[in-house]
Amino acid sequence: MITEEIKNKLRAIVGSEYVLDSEIDRFGYSYDSSFVQFSESNQPDVIVRPANTKEVSAVMSLASSMGIPVTARGTSSGRTGGSIPVSGGIALSLTRMDKIIEFDERNMMVTVGPGMRTMELYNHCAEKGLFYPPDPASWKYSTIGGNIAENAGGMRAVKYGVTNNYVMGLEVVLADGSVIRTGGKAIKNVTGYNLTQLFVGSEGTLGIVTEIVLRLIPMPAARNTMQLMFPDIEQACGTIHAMLQSGLVPAAAELMDHTSIQAVARHRSLNIDPAIGACVIIEIDGEDDAALQKQASGIEETARRFSAIEVRTAANQAESDDIWSIRRGLSSAVGAMAPNRFGEDISVPRDAFPDMVRRIRDISEKYSLTIAVYGHAGDGNLHPSVLCDMSNPEHAGKVHTAIGEIFDAALQVGGTLSGEHGIGITKRSYTEKALGTAGIEAHKAIKAALDPKGILNPGKIWEQPVKEGN
Amino acid sequence: MITEEIKNKLRAIVGSEYVLDSEIDRFGYSYDSSFVQFSESNQPDVIVRPANTKEVSAVMSLASSMGIPVTARGTSSGRTGGSIPVSGGIALSLTRMDKIIEFDERNMMVTVGPGMRTMELYNHCAEKGLFYPPDPASWKYSTIGGNIAENAGGMRAVKYGVTNNYVMGLEVVLADGSVIRTGGKAIKNVTGYNLTQLFVGSEGTLGIVTEIVLRLIPMPAARNTMQLMFPDIEQACGTIHAMLQSGLVPAAAELMDHTSIQAVARHRSLNIDPAIGACVIIEIDGEDDAALQKQASGIEETARRFSAIEVRTAANQAESDDIWSIRRGLSSAVGAMAPNRFGEDISVPRDAFPDMVRRIRDISEKYSLTIAVYGHAGDGNLHPSVLCDMSNPEHAGKVHTAIGEIFDAALQVGGTLSGEHGIGITKRSYTEKALGTAGIEAHKAIKAALDPKGILNPGKIWEQPVKEGN
Repeated sequence: MITEEIKNKLRAIVGSEYVLDSEIDRFGYSYDSSFVQFSESNQPDVIVRPANTKEVSAVMSLASSMGIPVTARGTSSGRTGGSIPVSGGIALSLTRMDKIIEFDERNMMVTVGPGMRTMELYNHCAEKGLFYPPDPASWKYSTIGGNIAENAGGMRAVKYGVTNNYVMGLEVVLADGSVIRTGGKAIKNVTGYNLTQLFVGSEGTLGIVTEIVLRLIPMPAARNTMQLMFPDIEQACGTIHAMLQSGLVPAAAELMDHTSIQAVARHRSLNIDPAIGACVIIEIDGEDDAALQKQASGIEETARRFSAIEVRTAANQAESDDIWSIRRGLSSAVGAMAPNRFGEDISVPRDAFPDMVRRIRDISEKYSLTIAVYGHAGDGNLHPSVLCDMSNPEHAGKVHTAIGEIFDAALQVGGTLSGEHGIGITKRSYTEKALGTAGIEAHKAIKAALDPKGILNPGKIWEQPVKEGN
Repeated sequence: MITEEIKNKLRAIVGSEYVLDSEIDRFGYSYDSSFVQFSESNQPDVIVRPANTKEVSAVMSLASSMGIPVTARGTSSGRTGGSIPVSGGIALSLTRMDKIIEFDERNMMVTVGPGMRTMELYNHCAEKGLFYPPDPASWKYSTIGGNIAENAGGMRAVKYGVTNNYVMGLEVVLADGSVIRTGGKAIKNVTGYNLTQLFVGSEGTLGIVTEIVLRLIPMPAARNTMQLMFPDIEQACGTIHAMLQSGLVPAAAELMDHTSIQAVARHRSLNIDPAIGACVIIEIDGEDDAALQKQASGIEETARRFSAIEVRTAANQAESDDIWSIRRGLSSAVGAMAPNRFGEDISVPRDAFPDMVRRIRDISEKYSLTIAVYGHAGDGNLHPSVLCDMSNPEHAGKVHTAIGEIFDAALQVGGTLSGEHGIGITKRSYTEKALGTAGIEAHKAIKAALDPKGILNPGKIWEQPVKEGN
């Protein structure tokens, strides 16, 4: 337990109103957006909401001296339990540190606090004609700090990359409270180890990110949307491959399988031909309408070569919105198909996408479970959704076996456990299989080097004894 | 000293012909392409040339058990002493591991051994219509392994990034001989820490890279070259800024100051107007000639707004070669100006480029030393060359003070010590100033975690007691 004396010290650091320990608050900070069940043991002892780096540093010094676990948190939109304080201790909420610290138009860089919401940052930059591309599905409420912790991706990754491709530098409070700066605004920088990229995606286990320098790019002047319908996944993937190899890189290439399409059709009372086995929604962008038209005709021609049943290019914004609404409604449509739904996030070499979909279909048949598959076909990131009824003991017994086989299949085709959600606690039992024993040992050594007392977000990424820190 | 018994064990691992210990060989492996003086103490005790990962692993197991320093080495084209075996022990030459292991056209990725030469890799990919963009100046002889160790850059960084932007995964032999794989062919991958990027740029101090997965992009169909002449650096930098902010990103933007231009003029008997204070050479690329013409007219218009004295767009390959020959001849032209030349490699926020050039001019005047400045203006990476005569005691006494002030100035404007050459031994006394004490401690902790006996390339990146490992 965290004593009243320690709480008083925390109150002295951040102010009494920013130290929360009521039952309802502790419950409220015990879960995230994953399918991890509520549990008393996931509640923090206390929630601390610092205002700045100095306060974070003082909290970490105290936590370090007392051996108290600290789990950093943004808006808990994570999908793998990364911000769940499984060892109790302090839930360190960074949402007050949500300001733009500097907007450097000349260098096209912005310095922000970790608590700023992703879409708010996007909008702020867009107003100045600059573009922050990473667009995780949760971007309306996710924070940049959380995006960095999990190296969030999104639909634009195929052309623009993911969060880490935009992180130039960080300010990080280490486990002992010391503050370091990594990277910076120099575009080329080989002074010392690339700690910036070590912290990005480390899920709050190596340090608390308190300031972030992001690079921006000019906003594309024109955008449009296309919808391509194919008899099956193979032709859809063939089209995407051929496009990318010819140098035609769309800003997004989202793919839905037959189950996903029919889920949307039912949910929205649309009449979609059951012969359609795959739908690809493509976003294109460029400097002007002429550039878009050139891309669109190249894509149409490629799709026709791969037996597209239908190719539709939006004639105006309303048509574009109409096309995107299919993809946007997908998650709720798939969710409505069954009482429970386990949405996964595997990532495979782009070439292995159709093979991976086939393997998921085989697993679906083997276990008589409906599995809808959609994802970012342009970058090989799939989201299979296992649909089931956990109140049915027959389902409950086999769902996790099926998910385990999906992970095995992803590794077999040269892929990995997570493309954009991280490992957190939901996948930690698979990490050693993915990284190998020597790989896990290297992770543990780095973790021990930067957090020798193991107080930073204990229990995450790989299997380990959960510390009783309080 | 490494005993005959140990050498016999090394011979048993790699074969007798690949263990060298003659005086001439030991001398030959004691230097690189930096200005580090020859020294007996920089000679390895033995050179070992493994053929594959298994042999590297066995060498590391042996070295680890005996506490023998191991310094990995490609073709020693490094500029900061990174591959100089300052603690003796084993010089581990990886040039036999120079094969393409897999060429995966569908995924646009290539897996190579560390000993492959950069340009050879480029050519191999180009034959198949694919593009490996990083082009360090030494690319005719540098190896991919060395490029990874120093995170090599080049002229194309402004548009295409540097080596680490292309590294998808690595096979690494750790200090104890264990072998790990990091990353892979999945484009999105957030399974565990980003060890791939931790190893890239770590100058052989954390592990021996034995296999590299690189992503490639489609080769641009068309290229052209432009030469812009300005009254001074400010207008040249203003042009580059305005271009980039408008979304017009050239494939290269090389800048030369007045001293550099006149050096080339003298060296090649060209008549270049002394009123020209800055020359920018720009490479543009795109999908066809129309795309190039559009870029060229945008660049010309921008340059005219910034008072360009001359704008020349190559009409054919001969003119393009002619323009590039000025830049290519630059290093020898500047080198010919004085008996000694210390070429540096600082990197600053792009916006700070003109300020940095002014500060270098001030340092040049303060110490009465000629300093030619050229560099990659598109990405803020400058190469100031301090020209002097080290046999003149007056020069010898002040050159390093002047270089130290250049580093200080780079840090003051928000830049860093190295953009693309690494720290090695030549800049290690400045690292703590750049990274801070807590930053250096974090580096040391990571180094100790992955190399607890300190046998991997000891003495590099930061100041440390050189171990007597033999």
